Amino acid sequence: MKQAETALEKCFQPMCWQHDHLQLLDQRLLPHQEQWLRLEGINQVADAIRDLAVRGAPAIGITAAYGAVLAARACWQSGVTGWQEAWVGELAQLAQARPTAVNLRWALARMQSIDLSIADPVNRLEQEAIAIHREDIACNRELAKAGSALIGPDSKVLTHCNTGPLATGAIGTALGVIIAAWQQGKLSNIYADETRPWLQGSRLTAWELNRHQIPCQLIIDGAAAWLMASQAIDWLIVGADRVAANGDVANKIGTYSAMLAAKAHAVKTMVVVPWSTVDMDTDCGDDIPIEQRNGSEIVTIAGQQIAADQAQAWNPVFDITPAKLVDFLVTERGVIANPEYSKIAALV
Amino acid sequence: MKQAETALEKCFQPMCWQHDHLQLLDQRLLPHQEQWLRLEGINQVADAIRDLAVRGAPAIGITAAYGAVLAARACWQSGVTGWQEAWVGELAQLAQARPTAVNLRWALARMQSIDLSIADPVNRLEQEAIAIHREDIACNRELAKAGSALIGPDSKVLTHCNTGPLATGAIGTALGVIIAAWQQGKLSNIYADETRPWLQGSRLTAWELNRHQIPCQLIIDGAAAWLMASQAIDWLIVGADRVAANGDVANKIGTYSAMLAAKAHAVKTMVVVPWSTVDMDTDCGDDIPIEQRNGSEIVTIAGQQIAADQAQAWNPVFDITPAKLVDFLVTERGVIANPEYSKIAALV
Repeated sequence: MKQAETALEKCFQPMCWQHDHLQLLDQRLLPHQEQWLRLEGINQVADAIRDLAVRGAPAIGITAAYGAVLAARACWQSGVTGWQEAWVGELAQLAQARPTAVNLRWALARMQSIDLSIADPVNRLEQEAIAIHREDIACNRELAKAGSALIGPDSKVLTHCNTGPLATGAIGTALGVIIAAWQQGKLSNIYADETRPWLQGSRLTAWELNRHQIPCQLIIDGAAAWLMASQAIDWLIVGADRVAANGDVANKIGTYSAMLAAKAHAVKTMVVVPWSTVDMDTDCGDDIPIEQRNGSEIVTIAGQQIAADQAQAWNPVFDITPAKLVDFLVTERGVIANPEYSKIAALV
Repeated sequence: MKQAETALEKCFQPMCWQHDHLQLLDQRLLPHQEQWLRLEGINQVADAIRDLAVRGAPAIGITAAYGAVLAARACWQSGVTGWQEAWVGELAQLAQARPTAVNLRWALARMQSIDLSIADPVNRLEQEAIAIHREDIACNRELAKAGSALIGPDSKVLTHCNTGPLATGAIGTALGVIIAAWQQGKLSNIYADETRPWLQGSRLTAWELNRHQIPCQLIIDGAAAWLMASQAIDWLIVGADRVAANGDVANKIGTYSAMLAAKAHAVKTMVVVPWSTVDMDTDCGDDIPIEQRNGSEIVTIAGQQIAADQAQAWNPVFDITPAKLVDFLVTERGVIANPEYSKIAALV
């Protein structure tokens, strides 16, 4: 256990707070280049979130919190009376950067809940952002422990998108569970959807598992059902960008297809999220806004056109999995089997 | 109807027989380049099939038939007694080029069934290959007519992979049905899976529909379920590489995921094949060999590495859809609702 915890602490982090700026790993360039962005203001933070330099609901939340600190310092230093109003306006802008992940708004709401009528409000906000980051690290550890406890020996698992250190503040959510289960010797095979169009599986999950010297096999997203039919998969383990009060799950496009396939093959499903991803203000999946991005993300790869000229594409970034397809919802507040409103509300 | 038939006749063909060689469009380079290969011998034909310069079960069958003619002429011209045995040996090699599509073996078996104890056997074989090609053109027309007749007005359809002119000898199988239905004014929306890893949807289907000035929207393969959940899709229409005697369907990887999603959303499913794709010698899907290709096809695109270093991939090229998920099997011998052994056997 000591060894596992050390591994958790040492894991890679995609953002590094530097007091007057945020260092952010540009995930668009991975795995080929490890280039860090220097973000000095909230507009740069918003751009980084909107343009996917950072992605993953928890990582977006942490990044936004630091962005709120940068904005607060700029507003405060401008010396204008009523700097708080200007700051709140900037946070409202930042909150629009991506509509689906609730952690973005959750982190900004938490920053706004701080009492700023003190001598050094910016310092207080900085402490809060650091606390959000630290709590995510601790939360990841709890999730990895709780989720991996559900997994039996000699298991075969499939995951979707990227939910590891790059998507969070520490070892990850779904991938944290997988890494912990691997370290406990419970996994015989790890498969990862490549996760088109952004290839978070191929580019990021494979890269992270490599760093942990954990073997995995990529599959194309459409192969999930055939993988389950032919390879006796035990678990489908994913993260989420938002969990509604009834347990419906918004996650990276492709999750719902895989969840349906899991149901058809009696593959157990686990959704692993920090509590900050659970949005009790959203009744069900129908109420979750689904971000639509430009079709160019599908007809090109790495700037290279892969489709026929003039090809159009329908490019929703997320999909909704009904709660009835989720066997276990793993949060740091507890594990819920067959999630539904009353069970989730009991953890509030 | 006259107009539709003219359109069918005029459609693009991926192979052009030139008596002493076969001109074959190199589909690996589409849509960026239209480059034709000149195949003068059976080994070149086998390479073209194995390396995916030509793909699509019917197109592979036609190409193989022409390859058999090239081989027969070479063996015959060598003047060796017993040239037929050498020829049969070469056909056996060619039959191994791809294991899943049954049309390859079907075409070669038909070529071998010809009585060669005549004055000009090579000419006779050439006539047979041309007949196979011509029959596929006629068959495509029947399939398009029969399949499109099932589709109601204002329908939204999804297809997978490429099953148009490039995959066949004429207008196509599943895509032929879609093109015909569009020309009949029945379709409001056409969606096409991009079809990783070879992107036949993005590269070929979008290109072919463009040529017919038919609009379509590409989706990533994993989005099929969410498309069905959110866009009220009416039909999932696909081809097949082999249909077993019980109605189980081998088709491009990703088909089974989409079929499961269709079942979950009451989207009707149609599998469109020439009768030559129905293999009564294969009892069920479990008996169909599934070609596994190198994982490099998943971790690279167009020669460019897209995944993390050392990433491995599981790359089956086809999957099996159980007959129970197929609502209609459309062949030129008839349309079968809810296909099963007795209904299929009745068409033999």
